[in-house]
Amino acid sequence: MARLPFLPREHKFFDLFEQGAENIIKASNALKQMLDKWQFIDSCVAEITEIEHEGDSITHQIISMLHRTFVTPFDREDIALLAHTMDDVLDFIHASADSMFIYKIKAPTQRAKELADVIVMEAAEVQKAVACMRHKKQFKQMLDRCVEINRLENAADRIYRAAIGELFDTTTDIAELIKWREIYEHMESATDRCEDVADVLEGVALKNA
Amino acid sequence: MARLPFLPREHKFFDLFEQGAENIIKASNALKQMLDKWQFIDSCVAEITEIEHEGDSITHQIISMLHRTFVTPFDREDIALLAHTMDDVLDFIHASADSMFIYKIKAPTQRAKELADVIVMEAAEVQKAVACMRHKKQFKQMLDRCVEINRLENAADRIYRAAIGELFDTTTDIAELIKWREIYEHMESATDRCEDVADVLEGVALKNA
Amino acid sequence: MARLPFLPREHKFFDLFEQGAENIIKASNALKQMLDKWQFIDSCVAEITEIEHEGDSITHQIISMLHRTFVTPFDREDIALLAHTMDDVLDFIHASADSMFIYKIKAPTQRAKELADVIVMEAAEVQKAVACMRHKKQFKQMLDRCVEINRLENAADRIYRAAIGELFDTTTDIAELIKWREIYEHMESATDRCEDVADVLEGVALKNA
Repeated sequence: MARLPFLPREHKFFDLFEQGAENIIKASNALKQMLDKWQFIDSCVAEITEIEHEGDSITHQIISMLHRTFVTPFDREDIALLAHTMDDVLDFIHASADSMFIYKIKAPTQRAKELADVIVMEAAEVQKAVACMRHKKQFKQMLDRCVEINRLENAADRIYRAAIGELFDTTTDIAELIKWREIYEHMESATDRCEDVADVLEGVALKNA
Repeated sequence: MARLPFLPREHKFFDLFEQGAENIIKASNALKQMLDKWQFIDSCVAEITEIEHEGDSITHQIISMLHRTFVTPFDREDIALLAHTMDDVLDFIHASADSMFIYKIKAPTQRAKELADVIVMEAAEVQKAVACMRHKKQFKQMLDRCVEINRLENAADRIYRAAIGELFDTTTDIAELIKWREIYEHMESATDRCEDVADVLEGVALKNA
Repeated sequence: MARLPFLPREHKFFDLFEQGAENIIKASNALKQMLDKWQFIDSCVAEITEIEHEGDSITHQIISMLHRTFVTPFDREDIALLAHTMDDVLDFIHASADSMFIYKIKAPTQRAKELADVIVMEAAEVQKAVACMRHKKQFKQMLDRCVEINRLENAADRIYRAAIGELFDTTTDIAELIKWREIYEHMESATDRCEDVADVLEGVALKNA
């Protein structure tokens, strides 16, 4: 059955998801900049905190629109899940930056910079994948983005494991070890949540193809 | 469309949620008392463990009644989600007390007492919010409670962050640091889960208003 | 109402769940062997990693078949939840083995062996419980398996708590303490997830009895 074009109301969902993806881009860039420049940490963390609050508001708008809308472009549970997993990405980017701040980290590590680079690349892919949702003929392209997000998550996983191994091999200050282990975990969780976003999008593409 | 009054069967859900909220009150009071008096730790933890088991039983009753009931007062997924998030609150109150016990903590900290105070206040708000579910005309009041729970969660977050900062600044015994970090995390998670309860209730109020 | 026998298509779900259970058996045996022999750690971890990837593929097949199938043997959300919780069991078995590898653990502990033994026993019960799904007259037997999984999870919890207590009592090398705490947590989470599997199966039995 040929499906009719999306209704005006439905476009609002895509608008919100694209805003959400834009927010992930902004947060990942702020994290990368924070690690690269390593100054004005307070204001970087404050900026990421604000982006995270905007993200909460976008998620809230999506969920409450879902409750008020009869016809939705995709399954309601996929829309809710996508909103929540995109929000989780932001939460972990925020947790990464915030824990560096709370723990009064003196200097960034090379591994943290590498992880931030992967998060920036994943954010770009998430944005491109989300943009493909509007048109079914772009679903094939969306699936390609999802494959790329999975590849990046595997790369992040290797960096994370190397980082943890090095941490226990080289750190004599145990308090430092505890702090960095948590920071690396948050960064790795951010990349995991990008993969969760890819999984939801993949499901959407397969069901609606 | 004017909705008919709730059916007798439906009232059973409200009864169970109110029992669940009462249980959260009891557990949070026991945690506060444990921290304030700091004696008979074993029996305090045993009491909280028992309350947590009662909570499991209430959750179980709600879920199994959900499976056997055709007409439910709210969306089935909201009922299931509310039951599970209320159960999560209890789980983290229990984990907080239990980790103090397993880790053979010698004395409570001021920050732990402050967090317990917030948990007690949140529990009171959760109970009041849950009590508003029975009558649609109390939904406005329920939303006010949810706002208050969010405010308390923000307060708890500030206490948690201060506690973690102080912990790393002042603790020279690293084992002690690891133990307290986990205890604070559990306490902060308990307040997060109260916020999750508020989010579900807010959704219920918006959808059914 | 007498329900008709399962359709051919529906049997495919049971086949996949049985493959998933078989996979959990294989992973738990590999973990036990790794801890008992404590040699060729690399190849043991590699084997468990491969089993975990097979598990991902099985989960993926179940979810994508769910999207393409109109009549399912049980509620769609129970099928999805069962697939995901079974996958979680594998993830935590993998995380247990993997963290021993990343942390370059020198020798296994008695408590880790005890936890591995419980995981092996739970895996056997999960397999038997899953095998009962095909025939409603075996639902009573399935419930008995679920009770046994709960009993084993309680036993694992006691071992875990003893392990953590001993760890803080006896370990002077704090890095070692951090490593083992994480390993024990992963092992205990594996047993928790078996209990989650039992909870889903219990729900299925109660709803479809």
